[in-house]
Amino acid sequence: MQTIKRDLFGPGPTNVPASVLQALAQPTIGHLDPAFLGIMDEVGERLRYCFQTQNALTFVLSAPGSIGMEASFVNLLEPGDKIVICINGVFGGRMRDICERVGAEVIAVENDWGTPVDLDDLRQALDANSDVTAVAFVHAETSTGVRSDAKAIAEVAKSHGCLVVADCVTSLAGVELLVDDWGLDIVYSGSQKCLSCVPGLSPITFSQQAVDKIKQRKSRVQSWFCDISLLMSYYESGEKTRAYHHTAPVNSLYAMNEALRLVVDESLQARWDRHRDAASQLYSRLEAAGLEMVVAPEHRLSPLTLVRIPEGVDDAAVRGGLLDEHNIELGGGLGKFAGKAWRIGLMGENATVARADYIADALISIAVG
Amino acid sequence: MQTIKRDLFGPGPTNVPASVLQALAQPTIGHLDPAFLGIMDEVGERLRYCFQTQNALTFVLSAPGSIGMEASFVNLLEPGDKIVICINGVFGGRMRDICERVGAEVIAVENDWGTPVDLDDLRQALDANSDVTAVAFVHAETSTGVRSDAKAIAEVAKSHGCLVVADCVTSLAGVELLVDDWGLDIVYSGSQKCLSCVPGLSPITFSQQAVDKIKQRKSRVQSWFCDISLLMSYYESGEKTRAYHHTAPVNSLYAMNEALRLVVDESLQARWDRHRDAASQLYSRLEAAGLEMVVAPEHRLSPLTLVRIPEGVDDAAVRGGLLDEHNIELGGGLGKFAGKAWRIGLMGENATVARADYIADALISIAVG
Repeated sequence: MQTIKRDLFGPGPTNVPASVLQALAQPTIGHLDPAFLGIMDEVGERLRYCFQTQNALTFVLSAPGSIGMEASFVNLLEPGDKIVICINGVFGGRMRDICERVGAEVIAVENDWGTPVDLDDLRQALDANSDVTAVAFVHAETSTGVRSDAKAIAEVAKSHGCLVVADCVTSLAGVELLVDDWGLDIVYSGSQKCLSCVPGLSPITFSQQAVDKIKQRKSRVQSWFCDISLLMSYYESGEKTRAYHHTAPVNSLYAMNEALRLVVDESLQARWDRHRDAASQLYSRLEAAGLEMVVAPEHRLSPLTLVRIPEGVDDAAVRGGLLDEHNIELGGGLGKFAGKAWRIGLMGENATVARADYIADALISIAVG
Repeated sequence: MQTIKRDLFGPGPTNVPASVLQALAQPTIGHLDPAFLGIMDEVGERLRYCFQTQNALTFVLSAPGSIGMEASFVNLLEPGDKIVICINGVFGGRMRDICERVGAEVIAVENDWGTPVDLDDLRQALDANSDVTAVAFVHAETSTGVRSDAKAIAEVAKSHGCLVVADCVTSLAGVELLVDDWGLDIVYSGSQKCLSCVPGLSPITFSQQAVDKIKQRKSRVQSWFCDISLLMSYYESGEKTRAYHHTAPVNSLYAMNEALRLVVDESLQARWDRHRDAASQLYSRLEAAGLEMVVAPEHRLSPLTLVRIPEGVDDAAVRGGLLDEHNIELGGGLGKFAGKAWRIGLMGENATVARADYIADALISIAVG
């Protein structure tokens, strides 16, 4: 096939390092091969480091990040369970959609797009409702470029006796995330953002408290594919005989293992710093050219920046021009921000000052002139 | 990472051609990139050829074959709907499990493992029950190596006004499968069997009748990820603006496109013949050495052969020896056949007389001596 190369500065996928693509293309082996089970163990260990967790049930779901979201809720919730969902963008809205399909009672805490989850609003919702099973929120809203205060949200939730579900699709390995220290119970992510791996996989972790709640279910999980009681024997650490559940995406997991190795080699702190420094450079360059960021400085999400499309500038022409003339992918706005903002990703491989300069130069030349 | 090479003669994954692995490792591009949408169109066209269908809604689900099964039933069925499920192995049993989770009323037609679906039993079940929405069956039972008569089953189902769901995970591109001619309404498969692609994807097709039924649903599909009403705008042929649903596994779809190209190049008929010839060679070689096939000749499934483990032969020692000494993966028995039969796959790349000889030589030398 014809090779197409792009510089990926959208909301993901981001560019994938050569060594990850090389790992991806290693010969396929069986999903029950002892050698593959060894790779799965390694993936689990490295993932625990990335999530900063000791959770035994830490693994990679064989499907994109949205299955991570679905697996979190269909396992945790039974029909009639109450859940508080913080909604400040597309992905919080998707959480609500999924929880409604489970038959849960959703209490929505809505905040403006472009702002973080408001802790007082959350407290009020929890004070006003008893027997809430869990609080769910999006740590890094990919539709708005906002980072919410996961640690503080978890504190409020825990003080009300709730479990905590966090969408960390665009934060894992890109911004500080301390699953155990912060007391997050179910956390899922995607492969194609700050991990710089190929798209199609969803890392996930469950605390013992979450596992205990799931083990007490009275009804069956509505999804066979996502039912972690079927997956537990396959994935749980220390388990030596693994039952067949489904055929794992062997090659994608080779790639994931290599992508995780790169994170471990670099260290999380260095990787978080690198994402922060790249983003700072992007903000200064764009602001110096008269462009405006959507999100207030203290709530910005380093891996993903929303830039307001200036009055009179043609969104489609700018993105089309970048793609056709420079092979650069820039993200369009999603939901309420469609046509109003660009989404610029500096994730994984691309989170460097040099890459920030590269996309800033290109965007400024085409959009500001 | 260290390269591990195996000859994969289990129930899948099978060995993946070099050009497919090469395609897999092409640089990642965005899932909404016009170039990628072009690839998706090509995948759809080639898949229609492989399924022998004109169905507009023919695409690849972004997860393993078991999500194909789940997507079929969660879309088709609403709570209380009646479905007849033909069960003659593990995968028919899994269909029942999934349909029960949907809240459907399951009428099971059970036949012995190692035998095909019995048409009289099916007729009786349909005569005894009114208002049955669909009949579901496994065309190629990967747990038993049996091929059922899909055409005849569909005829019986249609004559009772039912839609037809067929699991073709181990038959697509390996044995005759004529979706439109036979009147199959929902057919799903996997990437890692006779297509010789990497594991992790599930090709699927829906007839217009199935789409119409789904459009008349009164309740929401219980799975957000599998809800094809959300996917339709993304995948339906002729649609020029594609909405964002989830991030597609871009690299795996490169690989799928190349794997499908190889099928088109070879032609389906030639590929079916190749699978048949390879299997015939395997039967003769093993029978000549005194080994016994589990399935009667007329019901055997070329891509996957079940061989009875002879009295006194140590299953684990044979498979362990093949793996450790020859880098050969042979499949163990599943469910009722665990410890009683080996499963030998000659799929895709490996469906040749030469490969049949290769695995026959190895197995005979270690198990018969």
